[in-house]
Amino acid sequence: MEARRIVILTEGHSNPITAKTAVSVLRYRPEEVVALLDSTQAGKTSGEVLGFGGDTPIVASLDDADAPNTLLIGIAPMGGKLPAAWRDIILDALGRGMSVVSGLHDFLSNDQGLVDRAAESGGTIFDVRKNNERDVSHRQGLREDCLRIHTVGHDCSIGKMVASIEVARELERMGHDAKFVATGQTGIMIEGDGCPVDCVVSDFLNGAVEKLILANQHHDILLFEGQGSLAHPRYSAVTAGLLHGCLPHGLIMVYEAGRETINGMPHVPLTPLPKLVEVYETLASIHMPTKLIGVAVNSRLLSPEEADAECQRVSGELGVVACDVFRHGAAPLANAVLELQKELIGSSVASSN
Amino acid sequence: MEARRIVILTEGHSNPITAKTAVSVLRYRPEEVVALLDSTQAGKTSGEVLGFGGDTPIVASLDDADAPNTLLIGIAPMGGKLPAAWRDIILDALGRGMSVVSGLHDFLSNDQGLVDRAAESGGTIFDVRKNNERDVSHRQGLREDCLRIHTVGHDCSIGKMVASIEVARELERMGHDAKFVATGQTGIMIEGDGCPVDCVVSDFLNGAVEKLILANQHHDILLFEGQGSLAHPRYSAVTAGLLHGCLPHGLIMVYEAGRETINGMPHVPLTPLPKLVEVYETLASIHMPTKLIGVAVNSRLLSPEEADAECQRVSGELGVVACDVFRHGAAPLANAVLELQKELIGSSVASSN
Repeated sequence: MEARRIVILTEGHSNPITAKTAVSVLRYRPEEVVALLDSTQAGKTSGEVLGFGGDTPIVASLDDADAPNTLLIGIAPMGGKLPAAWRDIILDALGRGMSVVSGLHDFLSNDQGLVDRAAESGGTIFDVRKNNERDVSHRQGLREDCLRIHTVGHDCSIGKMVASIEVARELERMGHDAKFVATGQTGIMIEGDGCPVDCVVSDFLNGAVEKLILANQHHDILLFEGQGSLAHPRYSAVTAGLLHGCLPHGLIMVYEAGRETINGMPHVPLTPLPKLVEVYETLASIHMPTKLIGVAVNSRLLSPEEADAECQRVSGELGVVACDVFRHGAAPLANAVLELQKELIGSSVASSN
Repeated sequence: MEARRIVILTEGHSNPITAKTAVSVLRYRPEEVVALLDSTQAGKTSGEVLGFGGDTPIVASLDDADAPNTLLIGIAPMGGKLPAAWRDIILDALGRGMSVVSGLHDFLSNDQGLVDRAAESGGTIFDVRKNNERDVSHRQGLREDCLRIHTVGHDCSIGKMVASIEVARELERMGHDAKFVATGQTGIMIEGDGCPVDCVVSDFLNGAVEKLILANQHHDILLFEGQGSLAHPRYSAVTAGLLHGCLPHGLIMVYEAGRETINGMPHVPLTPLPKLVEVYETLASIHMPTKLIGVAVNSRLLSPEEADAECQRVSGELGVVACDVFRHGAAPLANAVLELQKELIGSSVASSN
């Protein structure tokens, strides 16, 4: 397959929150990104505007990018709808025979104008969220010595995917056979496989996630990316099905220090972490024991000193290790995973790596 | 609109468990049903075979039914798939210009052969589960003096819909403005409105249920039909989204006495009721207080004396009123609803009816 040369579309939304897909692809697939496309920021660099991506140029048009072959939609707006103004840019890309990768709920392949343009020009549309999951879970055939870890959180967009990837990579660096299991569009774009769980018909959500276990349990340790929050008024169905589908032995709580209300719902306060841990452990432990093993603190709003203090505070509050995977590295959490592996599966597997 | 003259298709599956849709339509819309269609039981009556529906005849062919205009798929199989042998019968009905009503996950309207036959003959296809829900919840604009009650349970197919309908009807008989809010295909077939929550894309499930509040809160009391169970390995996503979407003030626990394992999963034991109540109350109460107010015991496997004893036992165990809505009537549960209304909303509303 031809190497991807990606232009990330962030037109009018080049900020780290709305463009979280862009930031994550820049972080974990930097070698594939040739430019960002945002005519309102053209001439600047990704590093200047997003605080990430270094010298990657921001361009005003596909003409200004260096031989791109892929346009990747770089935002994940609430509800998943495509901003109308972006459609012309997508038409342009398809007309050039490029691939267009989208994680939106509104499938590009349902837009006849886009489909026709792709057919005329040899472009391709890849709707990452599109699926036809129709299997229920069975809770059978699960490998007993494959350890399943799941990141959970107090809200959306706080770093559950990042914590999952960083812990998986740290475990690999330490010589263990760990795999990041993607459950959202950005994770799938980075990892190349996974399931877009929030777009699965709800009756088949748990079953779709169980299939991710079956597909990946030849690895020793699975890091299941979390979605939403059990305390999120909008997305708790997704979170619950994912939690029961991936049957975690251990949970890593992810939260953003300083955030006080649910993203986009200023009238809904966040749930205090001790209460939230109780909710997760209660729901997760119905059929098998599950426990909190660590906390990934997103401390981007804090100074380094405040971040250290916050990690110490929350570690004391919840009785497990806590760190910011960017500031402190993921080793403390990776070690907590290995401790759980030793406890549950025995030293033979834990020491075989 | 022409009155419906329904033939319920139960071909080869005329038993009360698999044909639960048939039983419920016979129970709550008896005046509309002219026959059951099951060639393996032809000549018998619905009462003989299903234990319900009295003298309603079971016929071998649409020719043998009395002027039917509607064919209703009377089963709700696991996974929602259409048994292949039934397709010919559906083609026959559409060829006669009849309406075909289906609650299956496999939409009849996705089957080009069926669509073509309907177009040729003036027949119509109504896929009850088909939806395009794309709204998230907002938790705003909720009427404070509308009481929301939700039936929950330990498994599928135990009587949550029935308990919801019976309590709503009992409240109406007592002069109150109560409404059964359907959330599954059978409930929608009976009530004529609602939302097929298990077929909603999971990101929009909570939002779809919140819209049911907004559409119905001009009534004083809403009885939200439950789905699945928080302890069900397959369907807990549906249950969780419904629970958070309908924001219940009170929960009615429904269970079948004598059942020991999850329906269709003999290796998964049912969760003890006190633990299950804890799980429901914990998840439901994150943003507003919710409590158990009563228990609807499905005692079909018990003798009358055993049923009375079981209700007394579970009432003591859980500390709330318990009854079998068929054996004992729904008045004890209706009174528990009115007590909660008085407690939360005040005597002015509670005594205005």
